[in-house]
Amino acid sequence: MAPSVARKFMFGPLTIPLAQLFLLTKHTLGIVNIKPIRPGHVLVATRRQVARFNELSQEEVADLFAQGQRISKIIERLYSADGLTLCIQDGGAAGQTVPHVHLHVIPRHTGDFANSDDIYSVLDGTGQVPQQTHIDNEQRRPRSLDDMAAEAVILRKEVGDWDNEPIV
Amino acid sequence: MAPSVARKFMFGPLTIPLAQLFLLTKHTLGIVNIKPIRPGHVLVATRRQVARFNELSQEEVADLFAQGQRISKIIERLYSADGLTLCIQDGGAAGQTVPHVHLHVIPRHTGDFANSDDIYSVLDGTGQVPQQTHIDNEQRRPRSLDDMAAEAVILRKEVGDWDNEPIV
Repeated sequence: MAPSVARKFMFGPLTIPLAQLFLLTKHTLGIVNIKPIRPGHVLVATRRQVARFNELSQEEVADLFAQGQRISKIIERLYSADGLTLCIQDGGAAGQTVPHVHLHVIPRHTGDFANSDDIYSVLDGTGQVPQQTHIDNEQRRPRSLDDMAAEAVILRKEVGDWDNEPIV
Repeated sequence: MAPSVARKFMFGPLTIPLAQLFLLTKHTLGIVNIKPIRPGHVLVATRRQVARFNELSQEEVADLFAQGQRISKIIERLYSADGLTLCIQDGGAAGQTVPHVHLHVIPRHTGDFANSDDIYSVLDGTGQVPQQTHIDNEQRRPRSLDDMAAEAVILRKEVGDWDNEPIV
């Protein structure tokens, strides 16, 4: 097996701290979210830094959603969710703020929003959080790295592998 | 090749008129939407009638999104879109109204909604259409089968095949 090497993972123009990663396959990254809409809101991104869904190869699409399903199951169980919002904002016109293909996986609970679809008004921070929800507005502030690292440790354990390649 | 046979396709509890289908593979259906949020808003559903994403086999997931990507490209081009909203409302708690896994493919145009994420407030008709948008409220009324059939004819031509199985 190849020796551990320092590696850099990008999310759009941003370098992702390794502590924020919880899944790594040939084509896909699981990333703890710095500004989750709800606890357990994570991102599943391609490793390749491309903006649009139509730029992905068949293999990348297949892996993105195979991992997306795997992560969805873990998130639903860990956060005792009743359902999930699974969404790609494909391009700036669709609300995408980081030009890098990523699937939002958001655990949902019955009644978590006054209107079930109000959740989208807070995606990417472009809307207002409805007052009737249980959402803590504070959560839209960037979280600390420690906070994200602690979540990533839990999620990594659930994922159970790192594509057999240790990240150093 | 097998002779054409009458076949029935379900979307949750609903039988889909064949005129509404524009894509058919082993695991996936492309369906013209009876209540599109925007012109070109179509659905990509599993052939198997299951409610939740976690119930899909790996093969079903792979095909759903392979076809989803293929359809996305067609929709973006035909509707001269700047981007796409790609979304699964996975379970009733996430706003799903028909208990059958389906991906929404919605063409987006810069400025189509006052707030880019307002689009979600009209998904499934649970929210209000923002007044500032170009959306025709009339479109949330069920469309006629003739109208859907005409759209499906155009999309079928783009898709270019029916899994080599004629639908009769």
